[in-house]
Amino acid sequence: MESTARENLKEYDRIIIGIDPGTNIMGYALLGIKKKKPSLIAMGVIQLGKLGDHYIRLQRIYQRVQGLVEQYLPDEMAIEAPFFGKNVQSMLKLGRAQGVAMAAALSRDVPITEYEPRKIKMAITGNGAASKEQVRDLLCRILDIKDEELAPQLDATDALGAALCHFYESSKPISTGGAKSWKAFIASNPDRVKK
Amino acid sequence: MESTARENLKEYDRIIIGIDPGTNIMGYALLGIKKKKPSLIAMGVIQLGKLGDHYIRLQRIYQRVQGLVEQYLPDEMAIEAPFFGKNVQSMLKLGRAQGVAMAAALSRDVPITEYEPRKIKMAITGNGAASKEQVRDLLCRILDIKDEELAPQLDATDALGAALCHFYESSKPISTGGAKSWKAFIASNPDRVKK
Repeated sequence: MESTARENLKEYDRIIIGIDPGTNIMGYALLGIKKKKPSLIAMGVIQLGKLGDHYIRLQRIYQRVQGLVEQYLPDEMAIEAPFFGKNVQSMLKLGRAQGVAMAAALSRDVPITEYEPRKIKMAITGNGAASKEQVRDLLCRILDIKDEELAPQLDATDALGAALCHFYESSKPISTGGAKSWKAFIASNPDRVKK
Repeated sequence: MESTARENLKEYDRIIIGIDPGTNIMGYALLGIKKKKPSLIAMGVIQLGKLGDHYIRLQRIYQRVQGLVEQYLPDEMAIEAPFFGKNVQSMLKLGRAQGVAMAAALSRDVPITEYEPRKIKMAITGNGAASKEQVRDLLCRILDIKDEELAPQLDATDALGAALCHFYESSKPISTGGAKSWKAFIASNPDRVKK
């Protein structure tokens, strides 16, 4: 199974791992890019809520993210990173969760880019205040998959959103199609317009 | 050199690594315990200020702490961890710095304990509001070394303080000498009384 999975990864020009770090649940998604077209490889969540101890949670995050990095050999990591709106105590905990996830990437020299939630929604739906349902709907359309093929957890779709946002941001000519205006962009990307 | 160093580590019953994480400078100290007596093995700082990129800093912290863990094979890690008094933005960054340092320990199953600065000062000097000079003075006395033998940087002494605090906290009968009162404690620990 393992070797087959690795073998299959060769078909991709690039693989991006998206992470939505949290201290109760952490979402992840693997996005493969083949001929400039993104497709979903895998997505899911790492459940942490039942692990009482803070350090056990951090260790679990580190081990699981490291496992994903070793299994899928991503070229880049994209993280959904809220910067504001929490108290200092929860930000410290969030920072630690992000830190151990980042360490798993940095230990393999995988470069990291972080995106604010608003930026991710904007990149995917064209609306920074889009609802979670709109984001999910667009993810299905862009990746040409059915809703059932997406992991049900919000944290997993957030991670997938981060990975897709990074794909667009790191290959701007594709995301805007070289368009000089929104009108031109919409004309050349009909699949990304919410009907 | 390397093998000699490792060979010498065998004389210790326990080794504690102390860490004072920061995003500009990170202090570390290795404390060896032999026959219930603590002694300084090594201490220093990891300079991060010149590394511009946030991720390069995190990677440096991870790599250096991992290097220390591999070199000295500590049994436990103690971290100086302030919990309050900073804004959310700086707490997030501090959390990340702590997270990558913790990941280096967690990847080797080294258990972590964190101590607030006040707690560390209290454990070493008996006064939670002790000055840095008082802490430094007591560190020299307890470890039976001269001031010049301590690394000059405050972050390094803070890391050493965390390690020593952990030693006391994890072996309470030694720290209080089983004393039932401060009077008895002072009587049995004359070297820990500030003259």
